Amino acid sequence: MKTKLTIIPRYAETDQMGIIHHSVYPIWYECGRTAFCKDLGMPYHEMEKKGVALAVINVNVNYKYPAFYGDELTIYTWISSCTKIRVEFGYEIYNQNNELINYGSTMHAWVNDKLRPVNIVKIAPEIYEFLLKTKE
Amino acid sequence: MKTKLTIIPRYAETDQMGIIHHSVYPIWYECGRTAFCKDLGMPYHEMEKKGVALAVINVNVNYKYPAFYGDELTIYTWISSCTKIRVEFGYEIYNQNNELINYGSTMHAWVNDKLRPVNIVKIAPEIYEFLLKTKE
Amino acid sequence: MKTKLTIIPRYAETDQMGIIHHSVYPIWYECGRTAFCKDLGMPYHEMEKKGVALAVINVNVNYKYPAFYGDELTIYTWISSCTKIRVEFGYEIYNQNNELINYGSTMHAWVNDKLRPVNIVKIAPEIYEFLLKTKE
Amino acid sequence: MKTKLTIIPRYAETDQMGIIHHSVYPIWYECGRTAFCKDLGMPYHEMEKKGVALAVINVNVNYKYPAFYGDELTIYTWISSCTKIRVEFGYEIYNQNNELINYGSTMHAWVNDKLRPVNIVKIAPEIYEFLLKTKE
Repeated sequence: MKTKLTIIPRYAETDQMGIIHHSVYPIWYECGRTAFCKDLGMPYHEMEKKGVALAVINVNVNYKYPAFYGDELTIYTWISSCTKIRVEFGYEIYNQNNELINYGSTMHAWVNDKLRPVNIVKIAPEIYEFLLKTKE
Repeated sequence: MKTKLTIIPRYAETDQMGIIHHSVYPIWYECGRTAFCKDLGMPYHEMEKKGVALAVINVNVNYKYPAFYGDELTIYTWISSCTKIRVEFGYEIYNQNNELINYGSTMHAWVNDKLRPVNIVKIAPEIYEFLLKTKE
Repeated sequence: MKTKLTIIPRYAETDQMGIIHHSVYPIWYECGRTAFCKDLGMPYHEMEKKGVALAVINVNVNYKYPAFYGDELTIYTWISSCTKIRVEFGYEIYNQNNELINYGSTMHAWVNDKLRPVNIVKIAPEIYEFLLKTKE
Repeated sequence: MKTKLTIIPRYAETDQMGIIHHSVYPIWYECGRTAFCKDLGMPYHEMEKKGVALAVINVNVNYKYPAFYGDELTIYTWISSCTKIRVEFGYEIYNQNNELINYGSTMHAWVNDKLRPVNIVKIAPEIYEFLLKTKE
């Protein structure tokens, strides 16, 4: 399963090079994750209410081509790896000309509401089952 | 009492007009408030630990002249009004040429950790006394 | 003419009070303006290519009720005043329960690509005509 | 040469997990680069005026421990690799307890003001010489 989300770059996200600032992409990746969990029928804010969260432990972003204010972008988000303690997401961003402009990954650890690492299978096995299915 | 804080504009804060984006100023005002409370000997994160916070109910910002990456700015922050339920802060920002480039105000309501309005005199009179003194 | 735009709050836009940080609203207002200009058939990035821009000279934001991650918001944007040298926009934001949570205004001056104030009627009368019509 | 810069986390940079949001670190890295170039006697905004810039092509961030509002952080920035077409920076962030909380790298390509890749030795050899010296 890959989730597709349209991103309209914001003027506030541009910088004085005339392009979207590189720090914005991790935020767009996060928008991709939000859309992914919603598509899955398991909105992230509801996971948080159950007392589990995905703490970010690595972000890796590759910039091939800039994005501009006025563009209409598409971000694809998927789970590339999922264990009892970690989840990795993959991302690709295309512009309106269908050019791949950016790709990357984020690695997350399952944590409880005290930010302590947890084994998701013990805490919320139904979430783990849900995520595994997206890899089929 | 007025608190003086140096602000170095960040590249990420510029936009494609080549200036600092207007949405950054409320964040700088907040940095001014953080410095103000610290100067007062009552850091804001310690106020929050006591269960009281200042919820923003109005922001008013006036832009006279742009700020640029490479500038060194100074923000002055003070309390312009303080009651049992509300606090108003005032701000002025100057550039390295001592030009007033921006000024404004923020209005806040005292709230508890459930975001419910509270009378600060009943909840934490020592904080109220502290803030009143800054007006002398 | 009022433009309606859906806003999905981003996790990155939350703060440790558990709500959307107040500095995000001026950015959402800007998203509203972008959508407004697009609806008008005159995208803002094309106005900029013609050498005219709207420099922000005042932002005024009123916070009635917080927004949360997981909400689905609607922002309405319109022109409340338009002269040869200035444009004022108005905004209202509603949550999924149709509660008005935030409203405000931004005042802008017409400037050229050197950020110098200009009379829009002299520089680009077709833009002025366009904007005036939205008030009907 | 390593540049040391103090970072005071901003309230706006927190999220509803009660920690600094992960998207803020690339911005802090950039603050580190700004301080690095300034320490070098070659402010980045002056490099841009000469028509050269460092376009970001990769960002890699590792999160070991969260940062909090109320912390006082120190970021160290250095050049880990420098060729005629690329520059890599390294970063480490420590908290007030001298714990390493975050580390990472950014890879940049030299570009001109049209964002086209350039050979820095041909365009601005003095900048290249400057950067090489920092590795001694």
